[in-house]
This record gives sequence, structure tokens and C-alpha cells, in this order.
Amino acid sequence: MDTVAILGAGLIGGSFALALRKAGYQGRILGVGSAETLDRAQALGVIDEPAPLERAAAEADLLYLAWPIRRIVDTLPALEAWVRPDALVTDAGSTKSAILRAAPALTRCQFLGGHPLAGSEHRGVRHADAELFRGRTYVLTPETPADLETPRARQFRDWLDRIGAVQLVLTAEQHDRVVAYTSHLPQLASTALAALLETRQELPLQVSGPALRDTTRLALSPYEVWGDILATNAEAIEEALAAYLEALDQMRRDLRSDQMTGRFEAGARFARRLRGAG
Amino acid sequence: MDTVAILGAGLIGGSFALALRKAGYQGRILGVGSAETLDRAQALGVIDEPAPLERAAAEADLLYLAWPIRRIVDTLPALEAWVRPDALVTDAGSTKSAILRAAPALTRCQFLGGHPLAGSEHRGVRHADAELFRGRTYVLTPETPADLETPRARQFRDWLDRIGAVQLVLTAEQHDRVVAYTSHLPQLASTALAALLETRQELPLQVSGPALRDTTRLALSPYEVWGDILATNAEAIEEALAAYLEALDQMRRDLRSDQMTGRFEAGARFARRLRGAG
Repeated sequence: MDTVAILGAGLIGGSFALALRKAGYQGRILGVGSAETLDRAQALGVIDEPAPLERAAAEADLLYLAWPIRRIVDTLPALEAWVRPDALVTDAGSTKSAILRAAPALTRCQFLGGHPLAGSEHRGVRHADAELFRGRTYVLTPETPADLETPRARQFRDWLDRIGAVQLVLTAEQHDRVVAYTSHLPQLASTALAALLETRQELPLQVSGPALRDTTRLALSPYEVWGDILATNAEAIEEALAAYLEALDQMRRDLRSDQMTGRFEAGARFARRLRGAG
Repeated sequence: MDTVAILGAGLIGGSFALALRKAGYQGRILGVGSAETLDRAQALGVIDEPAPLERAAAEADLLYLAWPIRRIVDTLPALEAWVRPDALVTDAGSTKSAILRAAPALTRCQFLGGHPLAGSEHRGVRHADAELFRGRTYVLTPETPADLETPRARQFRDWLDRIGAVQLVLTAEQHDRVVAYTSHLPQLASTALAALLETRQELPLQVSGPALRDTTRLALSPYEVWGDILATNAEAIEEALAAYLEALDQMRRDLRSDQMTGRFEAGARFARRLRGAG
């Protein structure tokens, strides 16, 4: 692997570049994106040089798409004209079905979808971190199991091992249903809570503690990030939201009953299990 | 103030004792509660000596009730037989209306309700911290404004100033409506989310990030703490839950529309305002 192109050198793309370098990658790292982002990425030593999409696509052995979902979907067909047949194109988009549906437009080289579960409340290349992926799940969504075993895919997966990511293979549909519950529902629960409280301006906010800060932290995430996610995973999110609405409504009805004990026990059991202690 | 009695030397009661001491209080601190808790509190230097309720009530200038709500409600009438007429009885219960309704049974000395917004995910006297109240809101819920100006109340409020607490005067009803939104609703939102996910055992939990950890942290809180809160503030919580259900249902209906932009903006505005930056 002599040349890697990072398309979207923000938190994820920039961290992938830094992680590769730290893991011993000696080749070139090209950056594709806005002049402003690329200047910053180059100044931080995240990329070696900026390049237009055409040149990056023509020269790279590995193309790492770390743009928002819609832009990844739009870019995949555009790559067709330039990519090398032995290149691997991969992405880090937060939903996978829409991207996998767009991928067949790329016929001249292999595509392998991915999603590193390595978010952060911070965005932008200045928060890029060579250790961002260490110990974190990195979902791969091949169309067929054989997609994982091609030479290019094996090489990419070796680098994932070296940067400390923990690979998990799922179908795009499995992935999207899971994240609807584990990522998109928590986001909407937080945004809905914060947006509701924003309509209750009469409540003195100093009468609150760490609980409210915790549960509204996600609400700081901008729609800019979430618009694409909601649009490309609406069905699974609707299912998760409907289940959450049912759980809350049941709670409202049981508020004065001893059914609440069981809810608290189940919730605490889950929270402990998530923390690897149950 | 020569003698303070802490009834319930856990996180809050223990922290109040440590904070008093650090702020220069030179008198005795008695502890009332289970032998186990009091042994630990004494070993940690939180209380000077354990005492039975009767003796503590008979000797204390200030009785600080830091027990769960129901136990505070049950204890107030019991104090009547022993308290000194010039004593002040105060409490740190998380809901105030039920306690204020019980308070008239105590006629022989003054009662002043309070609620320090100084929770922590930790419980128990071993987490007691002399700085727990510093910079945090301490709600006082007098029955009449004059209750704040008696010599005993002024002296207690001077100590609140010295331990760094920020006093806020509300009626019990105002207090309970606010915390229904700022504390009880976030708790139930977190517990409902975690309890729902506990029913989805098929979801691989490694496909999750910090978002899910944040939003399910409150779900670790035991029902032991929350049972009394829900039982004594059910009406206000039902209102808050109904409003949250409506907000989430609206979100579900608008998921594919551009209405979502406004929800995210409102949520982010609230989250920033809560953090003092909006």
C-alpha cells in the first residue's frame, strides 16, 4: 500500500490517517476536500498533500471515504471513471444500507463498507487522534463473505488490526437496525428532551443536577451530522422510536404501581451489562 | 449552634457534616441511623458520636434529615415529643410537597424544607465530600417568607452560604414541578431506554459508542432511591412524561420532514443554555 487517499479529513478521516502513520504506514497520504480542511490537516501532519478527487482516485491503493453519508453516496459513482482496478474503496458512514445500494455503481474496483464506532462529542481534524479506534468496534459490511478475503481487503483489515480496531462483520441491514437502537434512538431521546425543556422557559435551570447535563449532552450534536443519518435509516429509527414510545407510555401508566421496580431493575441490568459488569 | 444532628449520614448528610466542619463549625455532630452507617461515618470523622433519635432530637440545635422521603415524612411527627423549642428541623428530601404536608405535625419547633441539587452517581458516606454543595443550588421551601428570617433559619442559611451553596427560594409545588422536568423525567427517559434495550438481547452491544453509555448512566440508579420520589411526585411526573411522549411522537411523525432541523436547533439551544453558553 503506497498511497492512501482520505476523502474528508475530519475527526474520523484524520484519525484514520494518524493511526495508520502511528502503526507504521510509510506511504503517501493524500487528502481530498475543502481547501480550508486540507490546509489544517496538512499543517497538523495528518495528510502529506491535498489532491483533487480525480488524481487521488487515480493514484490511491486505498480510498477512505469519511464524508457525510449523502456525499459518500454521490461520490461512489463518480469514482468509477478514475479508480485503479486493484484499489480498495471503503467508507466510514454511520448508516450502511443506502451506501451499499449505491456501491454497485462502482464496478472497476472493490468496495467494502465500514463503520467505526468511534464517535466523539468533538468534530473536525483538530480533534483527530491516532488512538481513536483502539479497542473500539469497527463494523464491516461486505456484500458477500468473500469480499473480506480479497488481497486488498485483507491488507486493509490488517491495518485495522494494527490501529487497534475490533472488527465485527454484519450485513448493512443488521448494522442499521442495531445503530437505530444504540445510537440514533439515544440521540433522538436526548434531542426531544432538550427541545421539550427549551419550550419550558419558565423552569429555573439552576434547579438541576448532573442528570440533566448527561441526558442532554447528545442534543448538542448538530442536524448537519444527523440529517443524513435520519434520512437514510428512517424505517429502523421509526421502529426503535415506536418501541421507546411504548416503553415510556407503559411507564406513565405504571407510575403509581409496583411494576416500576421491574423497570428499574431491567434498566440497571442493561446499564451494567453495557459497562461489562453484568 | 452547639449541637447538630445528622439523621441519615449517607452521601448528602455526611457531606453536610464535613462541609460544616470545613467551614469552621466547632460544635458537636451527632449521627442517627443504622449502626453500620454510623460506625463508618464515625470512622471517617463525619460524625462525632452516634445517638438514638430521642437523645439527638433533645440535644440538637439543628436537625438535618437526610433520609429517604418516606422516612422523613414518618420521622417529623415522631420528633414532636423530644425537640427543643428553639431548634430548627430541616431536610434534604428530593421532593417537597409530601414533606411539607407532614411538617405541621411538628409544632414545638420550626421546620424549614430544603433540597440541595448536589446529587452524585455515588451513594453512601464513603463518598461524602465537604465540597459537594459548593456552587450548587440549594432550594429552600418555606411555608411563608417569614420562615426564612427567624434567628434559627438565618443561622442555618449563614452556614449554607459558608459551605458554598447557592440558595433559591421556591414553594414546594414550584420545586416539585421543576424537578419533575429537570430530574425525574431524565431519570425515567434513561431507565425506559435501558429497559427497552434489555428486551433486545439480540443487539450486539459492541455496536455502540459513548452516546449509549451517557444516556443510560442514570439507569444505574436503584429503585430504592426512586420509589419514594415517584410516589410523592406522581402528578407532576405524569405531566412531564406526557409532554415528552408528545414531543417524541411528533418527532416520529416528522422524521422524514425538514421539521427535524428546528427540533435539533431547539435541543442544541437548550443544551448550550444549560451549560451557561447560550
